[in-house]
Amino acid sequence: MEKTLSWRDCPAWLSAMPGEVPAALASPREIAAWEVERFAESRGPGAPSFRFVSDEALGESYLLERNGDGAITVRGGETGILYGTYEALFDLICGSPLPQGVQSPVCELRMLDSWDNPDGSVERGYAGRSLWFEGGGFSYEPDRIRQLGRMLASAGINVLCLNNVNVGTAARALIGERLPETAELARILRPFGVRLMLSVDFSAPLFLRDPDPISGETRAPLTTADPLDGDVRRWWRDRAARVYRAIPDLAGFLVKADSEHRPGPNTYGRSHAQGANMLAGALAPYRGLLVWRAFVYNCMQDWRDTATDRPCAAYERYRPLDGQFADNVLLQVKNGPYDFQVREPVSPLLLGMERTRMALELQLTQEYTGHQIDLFAMPPLWRELFDTLGKGRVRAMAAVSNLGRDANWTGHPFAALNLYAYGRFAWDPDRSPEEEIRRWIRLSGYGRDEEALTELLLGCSRTYEKYTAPLGLCWMVNPGAHYGPSPWGYEFQAWGTYNRADRERVGIDRTAAGTGLLSQYPPALAARFEDPARCPDEYLLFFHRLPYLFRMRDGRTLIQRIYDDHFEGFEEALRMQRTVAGLHLPGRDRAEVEERMRKQLLNAREWRDVVNTFFHRLSGVPDEKGRKIYD
Amino acid sequence: MEKTLSWRDCPAWLSAMPGEVPAALASPREIAAWEVERFAESRGPGAPSFRFVSDEALGESYLLERNGDGAITVRGGETGILYGTYEALFDLICGSPLPQGVQSPVCELRMLDSWDNPDGSVERGYAGRSLWFEGGGFSYEPDRIRQLGRMLASAGINVLCLNNVNVGTAARALIGERLPETAELARILRPFGVRLMLSVDFSAPLFLRDPDPISGETRAPLTTADPLDGDVRRWWRDRAARVYRAIPDLAGFLVKADSEHRPGPNTYGRSHAQGANMLAGALAPYRGLLVWRAFVYNCMQDWRDTATDRPCAAYERYRPLDGQFADNVLLQVKNGPYDFQVREPVSPLLLGMERTRMALELQLTQEYTGHQIDLFAMPPLWRELFDTLGKGRVRAMAAVSNLGRDANWTGHPFAALNLYAYGRFAWDPDRSPEEEIRRWIRLSGYGRDEEALTELLLGCSRTYEKYTAPLGLCWMVNPGAHYGPSPWGYEFQAWGTYNRADRERVGIDRTAAGTGLLSQYPPALAARFEDPARCPDEYLLFFHRLPYLFRMRDGRTLIQRIYDDHFEGFEEALRMQRTVAGLHLPGRDRAEVEERMRKQLLNAREWRDVVNTFFHRLSGVPDEKGRKIYD
Repeated sequence: MEKTLSWRDCPAWLSAMPGEVPAALASPREIAAWEVERFAESRGPGAPSFRFVSDEALGESYLLERNGDGAITVRGGETGILYGTYEALFDLICGSPLPQGVQSPVCELRMLDSWDNPDGSVERGYAGRSLWFEGGGFSYEPDRIRQLGRMLASAGINVLCLNNVNVGTAARALIGERLPETAELARILRPFGVRLMLSVDFSAPLFLRDPDPISGETRAPLTTADPLDGDVRRWWRDRAARVYRAIPDLAGFLVKADSEHRPGPNTYGRSHAQGANMLAGALAPYRGLLVWRAFVYNCMQDWRDTATDRPCAAYERYRPLDGQFADNVLLQVKNGPYDFQVREPVSPLLLGMERTRMALELQLTQEYTGHQIDLFAMPPLWRELFDTLGKGRVRAMAAVSNLGRDANWTGHPFAALNLYAYGRFAWDPDRSPEEEIRRWIRLSGYGRDEEALTELLLGCSRTYEKYTAPLGLCWMVNPGAHYGPSPWGYEFQAWGTYNRADRERVGIDRTAAGTGLLSQYPPALAARFEDPARCPDEYLLFFHRLPYLFRMRDGRTLIQRIYDDHFEGFEEALRMQRTVAGLHLPGRDRAEVEERMRKQLLNAREWRDVVNTFFHRLSGVPDEKGRKIYD
Repeated sequence: MEKTLSWRDCPAWLSAMPGEVPAALASPREIAAWEVERFAESRGPGAPSFRFVSDEALGESYLLERNGDGAITVRGGETGILYGTYEALFDLICGSPLPQGVQSPVCELRMLDSWDNPDGSVERGYAGRSLWFEGGGFSYEPDRIRQLGRMLASAGINVLCLNNVNVGTAARALIGERLPETAELARILRPFGVRLMLSVDFSAPLFLRDPDPISGETRAPLTTADPLDGDVRRWWRDRAARVYRAIPDLAGFLVKADSEHRPGPNTYGRSHAQGANMLAGALAPYRGLLVWRAFVYNCMQDWRDTATDRPCAAYERYRPLDGQFADNVLLQVKNGPYDFQVREPVSPLLLGMERTRMALELQLTQEYTGHQIDLFAMPPLWRELFDTLGKGRVRAMAAVSNLGRDANWTGHPFAALNLYAYGRFAWDPDRSPEEEIRRWIRLSGYGRDEEALTELLLGCSRTYEKYTAPLGLCWMVNPGAHYGPSPWGYEFQAWGTYNRADRERVGIDRTAAGTGLLSQYPPALAARFEDPARCPDEYLLFFHRLPYLFRMRDGRTLIQRIYDDHFEGFEEALRMQRTVAGLHLPGRDRAEVEERMRKQLLNAREWRDVVNTFFHRLSGVPDEKGRKIYD
């Protein structure tokens, strides 16, 4: 490439609508007007005219109407007008019909969780450093933050959690001495309908020591963070008051407590409901949300202990608390009971808390799914997930961001699909993966390759699953990095991450006869998984411990299926490479996509051979088709 | 403990001679006189008087004579007088007879290699941060450096390599803008007979850009580091001249080239002899040594490739260069062909370079041998090593330091034994491990426990070997950290570190029928290892690939021996804990030793269970004695 790409060269799915929002625009309606104007300019005389009609009662919802003269009326609340405008413009660009009737988001909270740290690193980030932190504090281009706001608004995302749930010293200061800077970032994003959320440290009262901006007085930190302690409650109430004075529309606080060495209410013998409700009480006067992460398990497990089973942990801990959480508490639960593995069944907790407000947590950043090197498009898996959850279950969503300071925002340019589609599914989980993929392709300027790319993106997660960990096997990744194979790298560690393969069998029995995870599921779903002869293949080894010679429904043995999937997965990756080579990619993307595809192929080969060799060494069973398995 | 310990409270093996050398003392003889005076004060009227007789021809050598009146004459060269004084004082303290005749060091170079980085970190260090670096440059207490000098001199160590062989940007400046500071440290250590060596970056001419201190002129870095390039040769000659102007007695340069992503002559198609000789030429006018590390192998190996065998690499590369190295080049070779594993056979390179000056490299820092948490006393292993090498083979030694800023210098107070004994063996490799251990115990103030501690220290390396990796199995450690078990953590990586276990067999065939490593050994030694029926047990799986049911000489099967060793190793660790609990340790050491022993026991249990389970899952063979092996 002749020059280094900048983010200004990479408009992602705003490809058909290039441009930068001027700093002067201060409301969603002004931005909507600006978008329409730019669009009209680019289309020339044939572009339809737009009319905005405010209806505050509609809030984020909107109604699009096509008038007799071809003009489009966007009726909506403050942000509804902006959302409706993006919908209409995108429909025009894609040649899609305008949606009929009032469009309302299924999820009120459609949050993007960043795992950014003030030092500029992004935990599990694969798209470069933080977009807004560096060197211990804030550091960003306001232009780029506005472009980010535009991307989020156009995908329908309405909350950005600014900092990592693992809150270090510097991040504690976001609600302390750095609060004015935090408020400034909130101000830049506000016109896009994007509100901030902040991850806070449950033990902050023990550490935070900053002068009150009004009295100038610095109080000593407290000696406890016990949620039932009067001083602690007062401390959080005061803190919330200060934070909301600076950021009146803050979405709330996000907390990871008592997990992976984070502090929490358990330190003081209090329940998570007590901990969450205390914080929720401090936020309630400002209609703030308290989002409590349910990612809690024993991360110092003993691998010898086969009775303790990490996927059981969240349900065991939270189910008894159902009904005890305050109204403005959201329990944020990962899609599966483990931790964003390539394939997991739905988390039973998502189905078991009838009297608690829940937020579904997805992971866009490809921690276990290829580091934004390997292609992994998530919408097909989300479709299955939402179908399993059933209509109306999910009313709030959060997703861990895949964004970073890379010119193209997401490392792999195609990874932007996951971010865009996440926003679309959070608005309406009933959407079709294929339609969303096609829409994203057209908006991103890849329309010439729509058929090839659609096929590629619809199939790539299956391919990744095949060459890495099929049949619901988890955790065969290199410890720490979580990229590349190490079938027993996690086997004897303390993280509760085992496949327990031996020379006869593999997998964990999670039926009633085993660890009992299945009993946490509603009966109909449990029945689907319970019998190995009926359990869907992709969950077979997640729920069952089976001999290598177990006969699958299609007649193959389990071990043969493992071999077949790995050989096929690599072959599919090879075909993907051929597809990629034939795409008509814009210059900005070609080298990036091809280089990553080359790495993916090496990764697929490594996974194929390591996993096949691993199971061959253990089982001694040869491949029926005589393909090469290394010793 | 009521107060935090300082290094002043922890005199290590100078326990019977507490005190700090005054800054004013400027020569070895003045220090010797000071030591004698302090000793006389502590002993009172009964102390023998000392007389020093300079004989420059003796250099580092000395002769001790007891006169009729009980006075001791120390005859020696400049540093010989200091070494003789320490010998005599230690003999008096220990009640040992003075050595007869002229005492000369077998190794002229007795070097301690630090792996300290200017940022203060110590690569593979387990005793705290660097003693002289912090924050990107030098940072130390001169008092402590003098105490270090005293420790090194009293152990007979005469060269300290100041910085890590992996030379980063900041460390390059040690021979650049930081040279005056480097010289200042050399000045502090000079009276102790300790000269500095510096690790240099082979590609320094490409990067180093600092004004000439005389002309003030800053030249642009070169565009090549090719050792045959005239500019490069000139660059290094100039650089050596500058360095020796600042530090006239510098021992020389140490280089790790073309290894683990370090630059080297291979980059320019030149041999290591060409690279080393070029640098040696620059140092020759100052009688400087060029120490070239032979730790070179393919660190991007493919585990599928069973023909490439990392332990073969050094011999294959260097043996053809025998006779090509300049006179002031020393080839520094690790004791074994791998990388400081718990048990390795001697490196064939140490026996195969008749016409090259060699330096044996040992590792005191316990990278693979327990991180100075687990007890691991090295002298018994060194005894075997030197016996195998044969008399006269080793004329230079280097050892990777186990020192750091911890109050007790070595993390585990008993780890100081390895440093002290290393100096003693470098002076005379014929020494007895038991005698040196007893001497160290008496000097360190542990005399009351001499019998118990001697037994503990003589046996602890065997115990560690048993519960970790018996029979010459290597690399079953957690990747990266190198502490704790992960039998296949390195199995599919690029480092050439495999055990290739399957359900029938384990180990690598390194005979002529296998990778051929054995053919690199002298015939007599090769014959000792070649036949599995005669190969010493501790090297069995290093050289052979054997079935689990292989019958050992004592009638046990191989797999039973693996189980037995692991169960026994843990039991031995338990007994060690009981021994430790019964010791009369000084207050400064008790808590430290007991806490580390507690951790060692957890480690031993983990190793026992993980390794036994690993081999049980693979082999399916039960333990004959019915002990618990987890699934």
